[in-house]
Amino acid sequence: MSIALQIAKKACALQFEQLPPEAVRWAKVGILDTVGVTILGSRDDSTRKVAKIVAPASSGSSLVFGFDRTVDPLTAALINGTASHALDFDDCNNTLGGHPSVPILPGLFALADQIGATGRDFIAAYVAGFETECKISLGVNLYQYMKGWHPTVTIGIFGGAVAAAHLMKLTEEQTAIAISISASMAAGIKSNLGTMTKPLHVGNCARNALFAAMLAQESFTANPLALEHKQGYFNLFNGEGNYDIAKILPRWADPLDIVSPGIAVKQYPCCASTHPAVDAMLELVREHGLTPEKVARIESFTHSRRLEHTNRPDPVTSVDAKFSVYYAVSRALVDQRVVAEHFEGDSHRDPKVRSIMSRMTAAPYSTAQFPAENHFGAELRVTLKDGTVLTKKVDQPHGRTSANPLSAAQLKEKFDNCVKGIIHDANVAPLYETIQRFETLQDTRAVTKLISSRETEYRGMAA
Amino acid sequence: MSIALQIAKKACALQFEQLPPEAVRWAKVGILDTVGVTILGSRDDSTRKVAKIVAPASSGSSLVFGFDRTVDPLTAALINGTASHALDFDDCNNTLGGHPSVPILPGLFALADQIGATGRDFIAAYVAGFETECKISLGVNLYQYMKGWHPTVTIGIFGGAVAAAHLMKLTEEQTAIAISISASMAAGIKSNLGTMTKPLHVGNCARNALFAAMLAQESFTANPLALEHKQGYFNLFNGEGNYDIAKILPRWADPLDIVSPGIAVKQYPCCASTHPAVDAMLELVREHGLTPEKVARIESFTHSRRLEHTNRPDPVTSVDAKFSVYYAVSRALVDQRVVAEHFEGDSHRDPKVRSIMSRMTAAPYSTAQFPAENHFGAELRVTLKDGTVLTKKVDQPHGRTSANPLSAAQLKEKFDNCVKGIIHDANVAPLYETIQRFETLQDTRAVTKLISSRETEYRGMAA
Repeated sequence: MSIALQIAKKACALQFEQLPPEAVRWAKVGILDTVGVTILGSRDDSTRKVAKIVAPASSGSSLVFGFDRTVDPLTAALINGTASHALDFDDCNNTLGGHPSVPILPGLFALADQIGATGRDFIAAYVAGFETECKISLGVNLYQYMKGWHPTVTIGIFGGAVAAAHLMKLTEEQTAIAISISASMAAGIKSNLGTMTKPLHVGNCARNALFAAMLAQESFTANPLALEHKQGYFNLFNGEGNYDIAKILPRWADPLDIVSPGIAVKQYPCCASTHPAVDAMLELVREHGLTPEKVARIESFTHSRRLEHTNRPDPVTSVDAKFSVYYAVSRALVDQRVVAEHFEGDSHRDPKVRSIMSRMTAAPYSTAQFPAENHFGAELRVTLKDGTVLTKKVDQPHGRTSANPLSAAQLKEKFDNCVKGIIHDANVAPLYETIQRFETLQDTRAVTKLISSRETEYRGMAA
Repeated sequence: MSIALQIAKKACALQFEQLPPEAVRWAKVGILDTVGVTILGSRDDSTRKVAKIVAPASSGSSLVFGFDRTVDPLTAALINGTASHALDFDDCNNTLGGHPSVPILPGLFALADQIGATGRDFIAAYVAGFETECKISLGVNLYQYMKGWHPTVTIGIFGGAVAAAHLMKLTEEQTAIAISISASMAAGIKSNLGTMTKPLHVGNCARNALFAAMLAQESFTANPLALEHKQGYFNLFNGEGNYDIAKILPRWADPLDIVSPGIAVKQYPCCASTHPAVDAMLELVREHGLTPEKVARIESFTHSRRLEHTNRPDPVTSVDAKFSVYYAVSRALVDQRVVAEHFEGDSHRDPKVRSIMSRMTAAPYSTAQFPAENHFGAELRVTLKDGTVLTKKVDQPHGRTSANPLSAAQLKEKFDNCVKGIIHDANVAPLYETIQRFETLQDTRAVTKLISSRETEYRGMAA
């Protein structure tokens, strides 16, 4: 039996009734978080440029998040997919080595807006897609990541396709074909990370995954062996010897990947590699009432591999600032939080923050500080003007796995920060509340209806 | 200077006024042939399924070939791109190791329908795109082909993007960005060849290439070094040591690839690897008045690499028949031609043809028959019932390079066969004539207007 069909059989068999309660709980965390960052990301330039090109010609009933506007489901998946990753603020998963929800949820919402879906069916589809991409990852990653593919999309596309197929109630065979078609649309290279093309990867992935499922529903044909063929997905994206098909299915749903290692929610809208140091700073602030005025010097220690791309003492753009551990840690000290507006406009030039940054150094940590296998940690040493030295070690950022989750209050605070000012004020609380009881919804359009914003057209979209 | 910008500078500098007359002549051959096979391909199931999903929600002024219907340019590029390759009857190029026109022309026609273009600008854009994909091929192919990528799309996407950028008169820098964005949308694996997903590769490629140019026009960002970056296009699609950047630009326009080796026009709507043997049979028919009744035995010799996928003595589907050297050669004897209808419905079961096939053998040729480096040849040995043995050797199929072209009459015959019964009968001759003077057109919509068919909706598109 082909790998695609084996995966399809497992995915089709997964139904809401058999989900453990924690899978449903985590699915709702992923939905809440993704809805929030997508709404915020609708205001990003990358999203606006994509929407300006593709939205005007499209008609349909699928909501473009952040706008009072609907389009066809493929176009909605493209725009909302781009928005969902525009700020790199969306959830992560250690198995995938990427962002598990954004290849799936933009397509599911677009599809559910068109065909209608209960909350239970939506969640089951989401969990099936999530499981698919993560279990495929067991066979192909982190090799794909290290080589330079962008696994969020080059592996995530299978999750998106299977989730859409699940919600459309395709047969096992059709679902397998959707997987095979997806293998021919998998695309995205890491050299374009750090540019608008990165969120575009996700928009295209969400669209293509949904398209693959729709084509499969129309009895489109593809090679059932498209993955394991000598000129197939595994050999082309990984290459002989760099993948292990046998690892893909034995751990299916045991546990469900959405439960463990689970969804890592990003608390700060900047590169995850800066997060443990930010956590450490916020703990010092909380525990010692630390203020900028008291600080003489900050020494930051993070893993060398992560410091490589966050060692930016003088960020010159807001994107640059997102990858600067100097900026993120200093901002945490100055404002006692790190939120979206800190990476907008000229915030990265704030003299108060620059003053702290000038007193800071960043270095890789030694094995005396953390075990060699830990690349998630951070240690801060803060020397006060009175000579006191405060230190704080964080083994992994808060929210990185389901064993170290953000609190409900933290999740809600992030969500509120993301959506306020974009959707109707009166809808913020009802939207949060509706997502909390997602599995009880008879029609998930209860959610997208609350997301419809006050705007009626794309800013700057005049021809 | 980045590779993308170097290519962009060369491509932007290429203007109609400097084209040698033979480039214009060959461009018109490519346009004529692609228009014909796209119109015929509009009737293929793969095209109809794609159109059924994407056309209804789209509005715009770009023609869907074969239908009296217009959509937005991206959707038109997707549908027409799929149609153009649906029958694998579109032109080839030896440098690309694939089909050079279909990644380019569907997008150009869709764009020209929207923004308007003169024939001269259209031809210049086409030649610039053609040159771009072929010269990149000098650096990366045939390795990509052998490895299992589908170069028509994984290399052709750059041709499509540059051509669209050229017609939109983007700057050199914008054109370079379109190339970098394209590197993140390049997709298509050979394990899906022989299925509907193969023409879908081309539809997606044509759409994505146009999309990349449109995004670049909107000041979308991408990494200028996306090709040569360590996690960029060259390293991911070829891998270190399997490409040579230095080979890409030195032979730019010297000669233009569309002039030499040029456009290979397929005379028969089946796998090109069967073509030289079909040519040999048709020559025997012509020279000796050969008829099925006279033939006792046929021995066919083609290159081993090509025989590998055409050694199909008992094709069970019409697609299978397209790859059967047995069927194609026998059909040529029975009907004295090989045309589209021979690969439709149950034609491959025709008892008259089956009778010939049962008297036929196929084997790889030896170096005594052809030089080792020739993989384009065929030899037929036909033993007649009276004991006479007729032999015919063909070094390469007719039309394979510009040095061995099809006659104008052969090109016209193929075109007429492709379009008749689909577009208005009264438009067939004017369409041919209009394409013959393409460079004089003030507005290329003169062509698409003549293509509009009598149909007003997609067959089978009811929900």
